[in-house]
Amino acid sequence: MHKSRLEAFSDGVIAIIITIMVLELKVPHGDTVSVLTPLWPVALSYVLSFVYLGIYWNNHHHMLHACTRVTGGILWANLHLLFWLSLVPFVTGWLGENHFASVPAAVYGVVMLMAAIAYYILQQTIIASQGPDSLLKKAVGGDWKGKASPVLYLLAILIAPFGRYVSMALYVVVALIWLVPDPRIERTLSSKDA
Amino acid sequence: MHKSRLEAFSDGVIAIIITIMVLELKVPHGDTVSVLTPLWPVALSYVLSFVYLGIYWNNHHHMLHACTRVTGGILWANLHLLFWLSLVPFVTGWLGENHFASVPAAVYGVVMLMAAIAYYILQQTIIASQGPDSLLKKAVGGDWKGKASPVLYLLAILIAPFGRYVSMALYVVVALIWLVPDPRIERTLSSKDA
Amino acid sequence: MHKSRLEAFSDGVIAIIITIMVLELKVPHGDTVSVLTPLWPVALSYVLSFVYLGIYWNNHHHMLHACTRVTGGILWANLHLLFWLSLVPFVTGWLGENHFASVPAAVYGVVMLMAAIAYYILQQTIIASQGPDSLLKKAVGGDWKGKASPVLYLLAILIAPFGRYVSMALYVVVALIWLVPDPRIERTLSSKDA
Amino acid sequence: MHKSRLEAFSDGVIAIIITIMVLELKVPHGDTVSVLTPLWPVALSYVLSFVYLGIYWNNHHHMLHACTRVTGGILWANLHLLFWLSLVPFVTGWLGENHFASVPAAVYGVVMLMAAIAYYILQQTIIASQGPDSLLKKAVGGDWKGKASPVLYLLAILIAPFGRYVSMALYVVVALIWLVPDPRIERTLSSKDA
Repeated sequence: MHKSRLEAFSDGVIAIIITIMVLELKVPHGDTVSVLTPLWPVALSYVLSFVYLGIYWNNHHHMLHACTRVTGGILWANLHLLFWLSLVPFVTGWLGENHFASVPAAVYGVVMLMAAIAYYILQQTIIASQGPDSLLKKAVGGDWKGKASPVLYLLAILIAPFGRYVSMALYVVVALIWLVPDPRIERTLSSKDA
Repeated sequence: MHKSRLEAFSDGVIAIIITIMVLELKVPHGDTVSVLTPLWPVALSYVLSFVYLGIYWNNHHHMLHACTRVTGGILWANLHLLFWLSLVPFVTGWLGENHFASVPAAVYGVVMLMAAIAYYILQQTIIASQGPDSLLKKAVGGDWKGKASPVLYLLAILIAPFGRYVSMALYVVVALIWLVPDPRIERTLSSKDA
Repeated sequence: MHKSRLEAFSDGVIAIIITIMVLELKVPHGDTVSVLTPLWPVALSYVLSFVYLGIYWNNHHHMLHACTRVTGGILWANLHLLFWLSLVPFVTGWLGENHFASVPAAVYGVVMLMAAIAYYILQQTIIASQGPDSLLKKAVGGDWKGKASPVLYLLAILIAPFGRYVSMALYVVVALIWLVPDPRIERTLSSKDA
Repeated sequence: MHKSRLEAFSDGVIAIIITIMVLELKVPHGDTVSVLTPLWPVALSYVLSFVYLGIYWNNHHHMLHACTRVTGGILWANLHLLFWLSLVPFVTGWLGENHFASVPAAVYGVVMLMAAIAYYILQQTIIASQGPDSLLKKAVGGDWKGKASPVLYLLAILIAPFGRYVSMALYVVVALIWLVPDPRIERTLSSKDA
């Protein structure tokens, strides 16, 4: 029961974050196609962040599936992750309205980096709570995605002042890396069910 | 459990979309009936989109009832559907504030068409996950509604530049077609329960 | 399971409506007590609508507890109720910003009357779905509250042009009538459990 | 079942409150670091309120775990708590936009004091509903945190006109006191499960 309420709260917060983001797409004045075209950077950054939040929800879903009991530490590590995700609509709007300018592109990466670190902390907190035979630890394994993402975010932040489109391309690359659901966790969990 | 979290997340997103739409109904200045009357196109488009989202929630509810296990593909097909639905408040506000002008009427149809396609993809993904004896496949059957809707949306988009009220009428027709819950799915599911 | 998803969706929508209302309380410019005082009509109308929505959630909760199976008609009767409730933040904001002026006071009553009618329709739809031995029918009994409320709303709407504070008082009276949870339903349900 | 719907509704409202708060962080005009810096008081007050709401959610979660049946009184005591929490985004925004000025700092304390009182009322209502052998009563025990918080809030309100940063420090102290989940409730509940 404990866990289902943690899931429900996280689902609620992520669902609200993902939907609130679209409020940055302000209804334009005028009824022609030409009033829509200036919205493309906001729309594009919305799509990118929607995919990111979808990835987080998806992975969060898998991770909690492998979590057997909820401790106070897990609750707070989860809230810490939700805090950084709650800043996504803000940086998404800022990024879009400034046409992917250097500073917003770097700040976008900072929020994503912090969210990735928060996710890692949550994962380690769950593993620690499960003891030496942690199911999640086996499921996560080498976790190259979890290790590669912060490096790529850091790279994108450092590159942003010189080539903001390279930074944006890196964010797309990280999204693509994660878009495929993690076969290791699914496999480990299936073998448990079997 | 997997499925219940997918349902909860979808319910959350659709509930937020449906409620956020009403924020486009801005509180008018002044306290007379005359300040309310200019709001009727926004109010009307709100009613139309409320019904559409109600239909999507209702059908989504029936479809997931016939879904037995959640794969990564189903998760993403579902997020894809939620993405297009999340754009409904934007196009609804734009449509209403411009009194059903041609371009917003066409763009409204484009979002509805994309949502219908996303729904179809989700349906096929669930059917594919169920193998040759798919319960959902039997329940859906010929699916004339699912085939007629995109055609009517396309028609409405093409007609919009010449007769925007014909387009609006077509949107109302699609809503009416779906308003009746699908007896086939209910029947197939009932016979399964029996 | 059907029912739990209907409850979850309704809870979601009512929770969002109740929270979105507070967005009408705009953060004032200035940091003195004097910038807060003009907000009292908005704050008061917020309190009134918060109580109303709390009553609806509470009664909805009891009513669905006495509902055994969900039909298509119940789904739509429920969405119809949620539609009228979704207009509450709009009329609440309009009422507050115009210091309980006559027209907003009357329109507030119209939305409340429509919500009461929608609630009644939902109740009758559930009772009809349960056949002659309807548990809910026994639980509701004479339903004097359900009959008195629309009459009082209608009275408040008619009186609003002449004495808006009388109308406001009537809305408070209706809220007070409902504030007490219905002992009949609780008793009937308890005897069922026993 | 009763209880799970109360939890779901509370989770929904708290999730929305926590996420809506971030809307006070308005996307700034301009794309330089210098447009971000004026946002630090809003960001800081957001962090503080995020932690407070996380504490409330966490404690609410524990308290309801020790609640065995839901009465009408508990429903309304819970809504009363949610009412005060729903004002948190408003006072947070006001506090941040005025750089922790005296009056907003005091009003922030008033809302926090009222929420603490509402939480206490909810706790006592649950204890009363459980009779003399109340599980929650044993779990809460001396409840020094629940007694210290209102005193510290009151102190912060009274000090605000003279030293607003002392008030802010007191709010941080209260948050730190609660940040640690209550070992007494966890222990009592564990011993019950054992």
